[in-house]
Order: sequence, then structure tokens, then C-alpha cells
Amino acid sequence: MKVLIAGANGSTGRLAIEKAIEQGYQPIAMIRDPKQADELEHKGAQTVIADLEGDVSEAVQQADAVIFAAGSGSSTGDDKTIAIDQDGAIKLIDAAKKHNVKKIVMLSSIGTDAPERAPEEMKLYLRSKAVADEYLRNAEIPYTIVRPGALSDDEGSGKIAASKSVNPEGSIPREDVAEVLVACLSEPSTQNQTFEIISGDRSISEAIQSIM
Amino acid sequence: MKVLIAGANGSTGRLAIEKAIEQGYQPIAMIRDPKQADELEHKGAQTVIADLEGDVSEAVQQADAVIFAAGSGSSTGDDKTIAIDQDGAIKLIDAAKKHNVKKIVMLSSIGTDAPERAPEEMKLYLRSKAVADEYLRNAEIPYTIVRPGALSDDEGSGKIAASKSVNPEGSIPREDVAEVLVACLSEPSTQNQTFEIISGDRSISEAIQSIM
Repeated sequence: MKVLIAGANGSTGRLAIEKAIEQGYQPIAMIRDPKQADELEHKGAQTVIADLEGDVSEAVQQADAVIFAAGSGSSTGDDKTIAIDQDGAIKLIDAAKKHNVKKIVMLSSIGTDAPERAPEEMKLYLRSKAVADEYLRNAEIPYTIVRPGALSDDEGSGKIAASKSVNPEGSIPREDVAEVLVACLSEPSTQNQTFEIISGDRSISEAIQSIM
Repeated sequence: MKVLIAGANGSTGRLAIEKAIEQGYQPIAMIRDPKQADELEHKGAQTVIADLEGDVSEAVQQADAVIFAAGSGSSTGDDKTIAIDQDGAIKLIDAAKKHNVKKIVMLSSIGTDAPERAPEEMKLYLRSKAVADEYLRNAEIPYTIVRPGALSDDEGSGKIAASKSVNPEGSIPREDVAEVLVACLSEPSTQNQTFEIISGDRSISEAIQSIM
């Protein structure tokens, strides 16, 4: 099963490539810059050059599933936030639907269900994610939306809490997030579900099999 | 001030044309079928032929403001709901932004803030509206989102309740809704606001000047 990973050169995207390979998938790393190809191919990924602000149709064409792990990052302006986190995601969802992709796993964020309650500097990002998530839920394509708490670069523990609503103060290593994204590709109990994750005390497979 | 009215041939859209003329605006009725032109022009509207499932760019080009009063209606299938209520609205918002439209007033619906709590047959409609509303809030164009309760064909009373959250069991005549849509074009207190309306005991101008 070929899994296109958008945002493959980002921190979580790179980890998702590794987890995908570990779990027996063939990742296709979607990257903007051909210079990034060598390293990701060395990890075992195929690569495809495409830009969320350009045409993604060809990249999606090869994929059975898509993980959206792209993000404009906190150092870019409002325009990029809307262009990548919202409109880029919508574009990828449209392309996935057109090419009969079997599943989309969306890396979202805790707080996306209520952007208006977020600190001012987070509002536009969370609104952009909210639009994309809602668009995905409406796209009539199988999906899972994963909303982690604050991301850390700690090593993954493999132990999480997954539920419709977790402690918003909780955090989680990117490595665990990446593993959850990949695990959702084939776990039926996550189909068409939106849930939050933070570090916890249950194994990832157990936690996502019984989202509360 | 020229106001493009999308959905001009619908019940609320027709009333919005009348209210726009009463309040001194020049309505441009966006219609799909040239046969509808005569009657709307007789009311005093300009008309422009455009389809929310096609190209709306030319229609928007002439407008200073837009009222989105279109809807797929309850007799059409899920595809049309997404195509008109969601993607049609998104397309019109994009076009409005491109052509520097000064204001968009969106006819939304009560319940759009929580589609998951709606009856099954309403969910897709409310989700489509939710995507469009969220997209509009994020589009960096001045907007007002008006969410009426159940619509009736009764004569307008001119008396409403307007607030962030009203009694969800309340109803309101389409005529009053149309008057609110038009009044929002120039009432500063509605700028970038989302609010619900039902019939009530305050005049429309008073109610929308002090949304609670």
C-alpha cells in the first residue's frame, strides 16, 4: 500500500516515513525541493516533487492513501497559513477524491474545535485547520483526523491517551504522533473519526482501538 | 453600492432584492436561467447569468458587496448540497476576494455551529454550511454570518432577537431574514460577526446594533 506523505520533510513527516516503513507501507515522500530527495530515498521512501501551493494531482495519482503532515510553520505569515494549512489541505483532499484514494489521515491539532477560545496568535492557524478538517469530514472519502496536544521532540514512549477530548495541557512526542498517523491507515475503529491524543498509559494500538 | 445577490431566484433571495432596493442599494440578481431575468428586472434589479457550479468571476466583478442567499434546497441529493452550499460558497468567496469586494453577508443557519448534534438528514447540509462559514471567517474579507432559526413564509414583523445563541426552537419569516441580510451590509456592529436570529421584540436595526 502506497502512502503519500505531504509535509514529508517536516519533523513529524520524517518520522511518519520511518513508521510507515516499519509498519509495512511504501511511503511516497511529497517534497518541494529535489535536494531533499536523496536523504528521504535513503530512508526507504519514494519521493515525488510537488508543492501544496501548486499542482498536487500527479503526486496523489500514485497513492492508495494520504497522510497530511504538512504545516506552514510558526515563522511564516498569515497568507502562508491559509495557503498551506487550509487551502493546501483542501487541494490535496480534492485531488485524493478525484483519484479514488482509499483513506486520508489528517494531522490536525488540539484546540481546532474551538479556534475562538485560543490565544490570538494561534487563532488563524486553528481556523485554517478547522476549515480543512471540516472540509475533509464532508468530502465523502474515508478519513481520520488526529489532533495532538503540544508536540515535543522527545523520544516516543509508544504510550498515549486517545479520546474525543483530552487534557488540553497535555503534550506528546512527535514520534508517537507519527506512529498514530500511520496506525490509523488501517485501524477500522478510527474510520471517519476525529480524536485528540496526548501522552498516556495505553499502547498506541490499544488506545486507538477504543477511542473514548 | 452594487450588491450581488447569489440565489436571487430563491424565496429569501427575492425578498433580499426588494429590501436592498428599499434600503437604497442597487441589487444585481445572480441567476442561472435567463428566463428569470425579466421578472427580477421588473422588480428593479440588474441581472447577471452565472452558476455557482460554473464560473462566477464575471458576476462578482461588478459588485461592491455580496449577499449569499443561495441554497441547494432540501429536495436535491448530497452531491448538490456540497456543490452549492459548500463549494459554491467557497468559490464565490474566492472570487469576491480576488475582485476586492468590500463585504460578504452569508445566509447561514442555526445549528451550523454543531452539525454533529443535528438530526441525521440535516447533518450534511449543516456541515456544508459550517465549512463555508469557517472559510469565510478565514478569508480576510469583511463579513457577516447570519444564522436564522426555522424559516417561515409569514409576513415579516420587523421584530427580531439577535444574539450569539438564540432559542434553537425559534422561527423567523424569510422577509425579516432578508431585511437583516441587507441591513448587515452597512451596520458596523455586525462586521466580522456571526450571530443567530429568530423573531423577537426588538426592531431589526436595534437588534443588530447590539448583538449579545
